[in-house]
Amino acid sequence: MRIVVTGAAGRLGRTLVQRLAADGHRTTGVDLAAPRDRAAGAEHVVLGLDDRAGLAAAFDGADAVVHLAAMMSWNPAELTDMFRVNVLGTAHVADAAATAGARLVHASSGEVYPEIKPDYQPLDEEHPRNPASLYGLTKKLDEDIVDFYRRTRGLRAVVLRFSHFQDAAELLDERGFFSGPRFFLHRRIEQQRGFGNDAMVAALLPHAVEGETRLLLSRGSDGTPFRMGILDTRDLASGVIAAIGTPEADGEAIGIGADDSVGFDALVPEMAKRTGLGYADVALPAPAVHYTTSNRKARDLLGFVPEWPIDRMLDEAVAARAARLG
Amino acid sequence: MRIVVTGAAGRLGRTLVQRLAADGHRTTGVDLAAPRDRAAGAEHVVLGLDDRAGLAAAFDGADAVVHLAAMMSWNPAELTDMFRVNVLGTAHVADAAATAGARLVHASSGEVYPEIKPDYQPLDEEHPRNPASLYGLTKKLDEDIVDFYRRTRGLRAVVLRFSHFQDAAELLDERGFFSGPRFFLHRRIEQQRGFGNDAMVAALLPHAVEGETRLLLSRGSDGTPFRMGILDTRDLASGVIAAIGTPEADGEAIGIGADDSVGFDALVPEMAKRTGLGYADVALPAPAVHYTTSNRKARDLLGFVPEWPIDRMLDEAVAARAARLG
Repeated sequence: MRIVVTGAAGRLGRTLVQRLAADGHRTTGVDLAAPRDRAAGAEHVVLGLDDRAGLAAAFDGADAVVHLAAMMSWNPAELTDMFRVNVLGTAHVADAAATAGARLVHASSGEVYPEIKPDYQPLDEEHPRNPASLYGLTKKLDEDIVDFYRRTRGLRAVVLRFSHFQDAAELLDERGFFSGPRFFLHRRIEQQRGFGNDAMVAALLPHAVEGETRLLLSRGSDGTPFRMGILDTRDLASGVIAAIGTPEADGEAIGIGADDSVGFDALVPEMAKRTGLGYADVALPAPAVHYTTSNRKARDLLGFVPEWPIDRMLDEAVAARAARLG
Repeated sequence: MRIVVTGAAGRLGRTLVQRLAADGHRTTGVDLAAPRDRAAGAEHVVLGLDDRAGLAAAFDGADAVVHLAAMMSWNPAELTDMFRVNVLGTAHVADAAATAGARLVHASSGEVYPEIKPDYQPLDEEHPRNPASLYGLTKKLDEDIVDFYRRTRGLRAVVLRFSHFQDAAELLDERGFFSGPRFFLHRRIEQQRGFGNDAMVAALLPHAVEGETRLLLSRGSDGTPFRMGILDTRDLASGVIAAIGTPEADGEAIGIGADDSVGFDALVPEMAKRTGLGYADVALPAPAVHYTTSNRKARDLLGFVPEWPIDRMLDEAVAARAARLG
């Protein structure tokens, strides 16, 4: 097949393009930048989602478009760019895919649900789409854009709602986009300063120790430990590839996440033990992130079964951290 | 009250600002341009919806924001601008209104429903929001943006779904944005040429007579005459003012349109009789626009009762046309 992947230079995009190219598909990556490790045999086109002519040219003759490109941010000040990239960009992609007659595998997010305060758990595809974050809002709007093109332009499309995923190797990388602020105290303080969240900074700062890298065990204000799924990027790539190969799933929205969520009260002490780092156990001035998502529909429709549970990811994370620190 | 009106230079905006200012409200209009007839006592600020600092300044201290500004287009080539103005613009407006603590009266559209092929009639607020046009899609997304700010930022907001409205005086104005292409054959041909709709142009062209202004009675391909409501702008302004004065309607979406729809097979011959123009009776290569909307909720919640039915509008339209033609 000829497959176009937007967001090809990103975490999932790089892994996916490599897998698709290795499987013998004619693969074209699209992104604002070239990927840092170009997959053998794959083409790459540098363009933004505002370039409709560029998208039309890239999608021409494609059997499938996997639309991963998005701006991930939880900074309300970046509302404009989030809408420009995610919402307007997805309208451009859906329009171009419909025009090209290509099937669309659209990357949505578990944040279309109010993951931080779900009505019930485990969260499944029937849960109301009442996002709690601006990022989740843009993803909900995206789903409705894809649905519009399905209804009015005959676009064949499946929506995948990604729950949190991560490269195992960056799980213990304090510079990591997700894991740094999630598991490293000083990075969380820096992040919350950037958001202007003074209450959070005030709660965290007393736990910092000058010159010492400390892990962070986050709890809600009532003491509930954070709990969430952490899916390995390789598993998510397998789920996307399964969706590419399952046109019968068109018209469906399918959640994809880790089979099990993990409590930070178990995970962070284990991280501390394996790295020799200390950790701060902090009740934050906010409700706990505490949710589990269901993989039942992904398993039933796509045959999706993750192969990298958290323990296996952690082995790799510890080795990668040791290698980084020399 | 201090009331800000976006889209203040538009058809409804001008009428609304004049009425609000006359009623003694401190009124600030916002638009890309100054209105062509500035309302006595009203302020006006020239700015676009991309100017977040300008919106914040204009909304500061406002009791209510009436958000009318939107790009109305049915040209798919204008997708980007429609999304930029309607979707991103509404996110900016909702964010600024929430920050200012102002109530939002948000102008949505009957096009959030598939007006050209409704599941049932009369169309009411329970009808699924499955828009058939890109414009309707942007308005559906807008409603969900407003809902997001209600849920997450405490924005007080009511959504009004405007059905078609018109200044009575422009009903028989061939240069009119809506009425020209709707009721004047040569303007419809020009419009459809602009859209690149060759089938429509081919169906219309044989009915044109060189040098003769002809009216157009549109029918669907099966002969069904077009039928729709035409609300007078003054009535819609009254509906908006009622919504400003009804905070109990917050959280609701309310359709506002004409109390009765009118069949073009009755309207166009009457227009012809009163103007002395001939008309072409054309089965177009598309389904008929043929719908009626319900005003029940607007009547029950807002006390909305239109005072300008189509006959009264037509009297004014005929007089205005005669005055224009001297």
